[in-house]
Amino acid sequence: MMANMNLKEEIRQQATDAKKAASHLARCGTQVKNRALLAMADALERQSDFLIEENVKDLTEARAQGISLPLLERLTLSKKRIVEMATGIRAVAALPDPVGEISGMTRRPNGMQVGQMRVPIGVIGIIYESRPNVTADTAALCIKSGNAVILRGGSEAIFSNKAIASVLETSGKENGLPPHAVTFIETTDRQAIFDLLLLDDLIDLIIPRGGDGLIRTVVQNSRIPVMKHDKGITHTYVDASADIEMAKKIVINAKTQRPATCNAMETLLADRAIAPFWLPEISKQLQQAGVALRTCPDTFRLLEKAGFQNIALATEEDWKTEYLDLILSIKIVNGMEEAMAHIARYGSAHSEAIITSDYSRAMRFLNEVDASAVFINASTRLNDGYELGLGAEMGISTSRIHARGPMGLQALTCNKFIIMGEGQVRE
Amino acid sequence: MMANMNLKEEIRQQATDAKKAASHLARCGTQVKNRALLAMADALERQSDFLIEENVKDLTEARAQGISLPLLERLTLSKKRIVEMATGIRAVAALPDPVGEISGMTRRPNGMQVGQMRVPIGVIGIIYESRPNVTADTAALCIKSGNAVILRGGSEAIFSNKAIASVLETSGKENGLPPHAVTFIETTDRQAIFDLLLLDDLIDLIIPRGGDGLIRTVVQNSRIPVMKHDKGITHTYVDASADIEMAKKIVINAKTQRPATCNAMETLLADRAIAPFWLPEISKQLQQAGVALRTCPDTFRLLEKAGFQNIALATEEDWKTEYLDLILSIKIVNGMEEAMAHIARYGSAHSEAIITSDYSRAMRFLNEVDASAVFINASTRLNDGYELGLGAEMGISTSRIHARGPMGLQALTCNKFIIMGEGQVRE
Repeated sequence: MMANMNLKEEIRQQATDAKKAASHLARCGTQVKNRALLAMADALERQSDFLIEENVKDLTEARAQGISLPLLERLTLSKKRIVEMATGIRAVAALPDPVGEISGMTRRPNGMQVGQMRVPIGVIGIIYESRPNVTADTAALCIKSGNAVILRGGSEAIFSNKAIASVLETSGKENGLPPHAVTFIETTDRQAIFDLLLLDDLIDLIIPRGGDGLIRTVVQNSRIPVMKHDKGITHTYVDASADIEMAKKIVINAKTQRPATCNAMETLLADRAIAPFWLPEISKQLQQAGVALRTCPDTFRLLEKAGFQNIALATEEDWKTEYLDLILSIKIVNGMEEAMAHIARYGSAHSEAIITSDYSRAMRFLNEVDASAVFINASTRLNDGYELGLGAEMGISTSRIHARGPMGLQALTCNKFIIMGEGQVRE
Repeated sequence: MMANMNLKEEIRQQATDAKKAASHLARCGTQVKNRALLAMADALERQSDFLIEENVKDLTEARAQGISLPLLERLTLSKKRIVEMATGIRAVAALPDPVGEISGMTRRPNGMQVGQMRVPIGVIGIIYESRPNVTADTAALCIKSGNAVILRGGSEAIFSNKAIASVLETSGKENGLPPHAVTFIETTDRQAIFDLLLLDDLIDLIIPRGGDGLIRTVVQNSRIPVMKHDKGITHTYVDASADIEMAKKIVINAKTQRPATCNAMETLLADRAIAPFWLPEISKQLQQAGVALRTCPDTFRLLEKAGFQNIALATEEDWKTEYLDLILSIKIVNGMEEAMAHIARYGSAHSEAIITSDYSRAMRFLNEVDASAVFINASTRLNDGYELGLGAEMGISTSRIHARGPMGLQALTCNKFIIMGEGQVRE
């Protein structure tokens, strides 16, 4: 009880310090922020021995707990990875500063000028369960957009994250940023998350990045606004009029280029008109690429007749599943209506694509499909901040307010109204 | 227990129906929405006898409970007020449709075109404790922006709200809107609010409009994103260089034009350089307008010496108080730094103004003061959707994400990314 009380107070103190830092950061010029970011990048490279030492502690613990090789690999901080982190920070420094942009300035009938000015959000809390590089990436994006950041990383990378955050905070402070611009929650006590989520007087936005369980916990317990980064049950609909070579190229890319990501395709919807000749061709390519196929009965019959082996019937559960793996469900649909109905029913409104050469179907799909990103004739794997031109991203928001899709620097700001008058009053 | 179980299920069913309506509404063309809105306006006027009958039930109950005359007056639905509601709906119909607007369309290096399309949010829940006209205003704004709306009004206006909502829902349905586009929660059981706030799979945004207590309850219990409409502790800083006649006009307007509103001034900050001659003048005018003055010690001495009576010393509590009444706290400050520090410490980031003729101080105030609306040489009373050119508003958001300040139709929408490709894949 006493220990928890102290934790609660400690977290509140950290958030209070962060709020103070945020009000300084909001007034920092672009040059100050960029100089600090470049210094942070240099400091990470300069202190790479220290970072690697701390990372070894996490790796030792991970090995003791017997975690899998791919996870161990993700956790490892090499010299190369540290250089990549530094390069990422320098790239953020090079992006245009979103703060201070004025838009929509118009003159009202009473003569006053009204517009909106982009300003930082304030204090942003990031709760994540990812690789240590997220610590550096997210801190850089928050600083560049004038926000203070409170980081709460996963226990599996606690030594690495703590080390990265301390290098960033120290070098930032020594190079013009206010103290506490970057705050790291050092305890791995899960209670700290719950304490943090109650501080809606001090923290302005929470971004959870991790699995379903983490996101659910945050949404259910937060009094602070949350930008969700939820799962992607992603479809590609191949229309009757599709360029079939283009359709193959896109489908292979959407499924196999990096299957463990939220924008990778999970279900292929093929129009009945092209199914008989196109589905066997693409299924062969998919199987050659190591993709396991789970199909609707019509597809199953078609592929069976064509001599396919190792195909399975999809269950109702398959249509709802984010495989994050080399598995694909396939369904034959009677036209775009049925495809859109399937997407509306089973999709997670993340990334959706149509492959077509028909103008009006392309436009209807674009207008009517509800997703953070809707694609015509392109791979859903392109739903990414770099690919869509944001320069960098803070994950992909599946929330329907504030920012939807890849969150760049602009999504880490808000607008205030500005009014320039000459004595106007309310009549 | 059983009754609560049924209520929970009933609320979930209503939200499920609203979600279905939302997916239809998102695809409704502007003409369809406008025609329905005009029919709704007509129906309210045509059925004014029914609305007034139902309103009498609320008034009878209110009188039995002995509520004050001003509150009784606010609750009353007259023919004139019904015509005003209808006129408000027609004004919303006349506004441009925000849905479908495409912005930021650029071509990426790989040739694909990327932009954002404005789309409805989905299902919006409004929890309010206000006059019955809010039912009509908010429903019209939600429909026009393509959203389904779930309304939960206060028990004091339950018969009036229910009647208005049923007229709107019926006439909307008869004129091209999907059923359940407008849903009203008919029970006055407070538990319904808590049940509603858990439905984050069905409802996309909650807007509470009412007192502190309501907003607190909603923020603490909602799993759904909330746009707060919180209090305004509003300042006007009169700089040393202010045009003193303009300053008087603005200060009188900001305090007295409608003191019970969130954008009315609560604290006047006067620069020490102008205090000796200007404060007695404005204080006299304020007292003549019936404003009670609570001042810092310096102001007190100054006014006392000038022969003022009926002035009081402000307590620490005064600087933190939203009077919503003909009361004003006054403080002499040593320049803009001190004014901005006072605003940062005591303000609620709602509406803040500077009166000045100095260019660089005007610009610093505009850039650095944190509020939903920052004014140079204008009355904070102008922080309003109509005055700032939004055409209509859904209250004034004090949230720092999604929308800040007056929420117009655009604030009831979000953006999705749209990508028009020619076969692009992720490399």
